Amino acid sequence: MLDASLRLRSSRVVKTPVVKMEHVFPWGQRVVLHLKLENLQRTGSFKARGATNFVMQSPGASRFVAHSAGNHGAALAWASKERGAQCTVVVPRTAPRAKVELIREYGAQVVETDHSKRTETVEAIVAGDPDAVVVHPFDDIKVMAGQGTIAVELVDQTEHLDSVVVPVSGGGMAAGITAVLEDKVVLVEPKGKRLMDALASKDRTLNGSPEPLDTVADGMRSRALGSLPWDALQNVRNVLTVDDDAILRAMIRTFEEAKTVCEPSGATALAGVLSADQHTFASCFGEKDTTHVGIIVCGGNLDVEPMLRTFYS
Amino acid sequence: MLDASLRLRSSRVVKTPVVKMEHVFPWGQRVVLHLKLENLQRTGSFKARGATNFVMQSPGASRFVAHSAGNHGAALAWASKERGAQCTVVVPRTAPRAKVELIREYGAQVVETDHSKRTETVEAIVAGDPDAVVVHPFDDIKVMAGQGTIAVELVDQTEHLDSVVVPVSGGGMAAGITAVLEDKVVLVEPKGKRLMDALASKDRTLNGSPEPLDTVADGMRSRALGSLPWDALQNVRNVLTVDDDAILRAMIRTFEEAKTVCEPSGATALAGVLSADQHTFASCFGEKDTTHVGIIVCGGNLDVEPMLRTFYS
Repeated sequence: MLDASLRLRSSRVVKTPVVKMEHVFPWGQRVVLHLKLENLQRTGSFKARGATNFVMQSPGASRFVAHSAGNHGAALAWASKERGAQCTVVVPRTAPRAKVELIREYGAQVVETDHSKRTETVEAIVAGDPDAVVVHPFDDIKVMAGQGTIAVELVDQTEHLDSVVVPVSGGGMAAGITAVLEDKVVLVEPKGKRLMDALASKDRTLNGSPEPLDTVADGMRSRALGSLPWDALQNVRNVLTVDDDAILRAMIRTFEEAKTVCEPSGATALAGVLSADQHTFASCFGEKDTTHVGIIVCGGNLDVEPMLRTFYS
Repeated sequence: MLDASLRLRSSRVVKTPVVKMEHVFPWGQRVVLHLKLENLQRTGSFKARGATNFVMQSPGASRFVAHSAGNHGAALAWASKERGAQCTVVVPRTAPRAKVELIREYGAQVVETDHSKRTETVEAIVAGDPDAVVVHPFDDIKVMAGQGTIAVELVDQTEHLDSVVVPVSGGGMAAGITAVLEDKVVLVEPKGKRLMDALASKDRTLNGSPEPLDTVADGMRSRALGSLPWDALQNVRNVLTVDDDAILRAMIRTFEEAKTVCEPSGATALAGVLSADQHTFASCFGEKDTTHVGIIVCGGNLDVEPMLRTFYS
C-alpha cells in the first residue's frame, strides 16, 4: 500500500481533507466522526485512486477499457488522459446523460450497449487492439491497492482512530483499506446484501441474484464481492447494514453540518454509525465514553441540476 | 478592520478556506475564481463575524436582541452564547420552522410576531431590560467592521486578486469589504434592486417599496441599503445584476464542481461573473487574458431536508 501511496504522490490524485463532526447517542456515548472527503477527490470519487494506480503501472498499454456508467468510468477516463493514453468506456444505453457526458469530457470514447452485452462488448474492443487493457472496477490487485491509499492518508491525518467505517460494494476499497487498518475496519453495506451471511456460509455469491440491489446508493448495487476482495475480507467480523432512510438522513446531516455534497453511497458510512442502536454500536465500536471513528465519504457525484431545479421551481 | 480581525482571532469565528475554480468565456477570456467559503463559517454564514464583533465590544450588555428569521438571528444567538450572554430573536410567524429551530438550538429565546410588528416588538423587549442591546443586521459600524474581516483574510489567502465580487443586500458586508479593498470591489445585486440607479440619483430609497425583492436569494431581499452602508458605498461604480436562473446555474456549478453546499444568496457572486456578457465583464474586470476574481460564498443555509427528500422519494 505504501508503494501505491508513493506512486500516487507523483500523480494529481488529491490528498483529500478530513473534517470533524460530533454525535451524542441517546444512551450517552459520544462519537467524534472524522470524515475523509473523497467527494473532493479528482472526478468526484475515490475511484480516481485505483484507476490511477493501475494506469501508472501499465506503461505498455495505449488504451484502457472498462464498462461503467458511474464513478469508475469517469475515473478511468481521467487517469488515462493524465497518462496520455486512450480510454474507452462501455456504458449501458440507460445510463444517465450527465454521467455519460462527464466521461466524454474527460476525453474517453463512449460505446453504448445493452446491459446484458457489456462484457462481450468490452472483450470485442480488447480483441481488436493488442495494446488495450481492461481495468476492472474492483476485482484487481492494483485497483485495490490504489483505493487503500485512503487509509494511509487517514492515519497520517488523525491523531487517534478507534475504527474506520468503509462502504462495501464489489469490495475493492474495503479490501485496500483493510490491508492497512485490519481489525479497525467496520464495513457498511446496503440492506439486502447480506455480507455476514455470505461470510458465515463461505458462499461469495450467496446473494447472487442477477438483479442489482434495490438501494438509493447507486454506487453500491453489486450483490456479491469480487473474488479478490472476498479473499481479502475473510477476517472482517463487523458489518453495519443501512436502509434508504438511514442513508438519506446521513446525507441531510452531511449537507447541513459539513456543507459538503455527497452522493448516497458517500453517506452510507455515516448512516451506519448514526443509525446503530446501542447494542450494535457497542459490538462494532465498544463502550468507551468517547469513540473516534473514521468515515469514508467515498463520492459526491449526484444529479445536482434536476435536484436544485425541482426544489427551486 | 484590522482591529476587528485581531478581536475575532480570540473568538471561535473561523478563518474560512478559499478554493479555486476556473472558467473560460466563449470570447476567450479566462477567469480564476477564488471562492471564499463563508458557508463553512460558524452558523453557516458570514453573519457570525459581525455579530461576534459587536458582542465582543459590548461588555456591559447582558442580552442581545434582533429581529431576523435568517442568518443574522442564528449568528447573534451563537455569538451571545459564546459570550455567555442572553439573546432574544424576534421572528415573523411565517418563518420556516427549520430556521427557528436553529436559532433555539443556539440558545436564544424566540419571540414570534407579525412581520409588521417586528420593530415595536424589539423596542418593547429592550424597554423592559436596561442591559439589553439591539443589534442591527447591517446598519451598524461594528457589524460592518466584523464582516470586513472577510477581506483581510482573503488578501492573506491569495497571491493576487484583480477584483472581488461581493453580494449586497442591506450593505453591511459590502461596506466592510469595501473599506479594505476599495476599488477592487464589484457588487452583485438581485434583479429589481436597481442600486446603480439609486446611486446615480443619490436616492437611497429610490426603490423603497415596502415589499421585499422577489428573488430566490432569500438572504438578499432588502430593497434599500442601510444608511451607514449607503454612505460607505458612494464610490462603488461596478454592480452586477443577477436573475433567478443565473443564481440557480451558479448554485449547480458550486455543488457540482466545488462539492460545497451554498444557499442561493451564497451563489450570487459566482452568478454575477458567469452570467456576464463580454461588455459587462470587460467593464467590471478588464480585458486581461486571465483575471483573478475573489468570490464571496456568503452562506450555506438551505432547507436540505425537503430538497433531498423530494428528490429521492
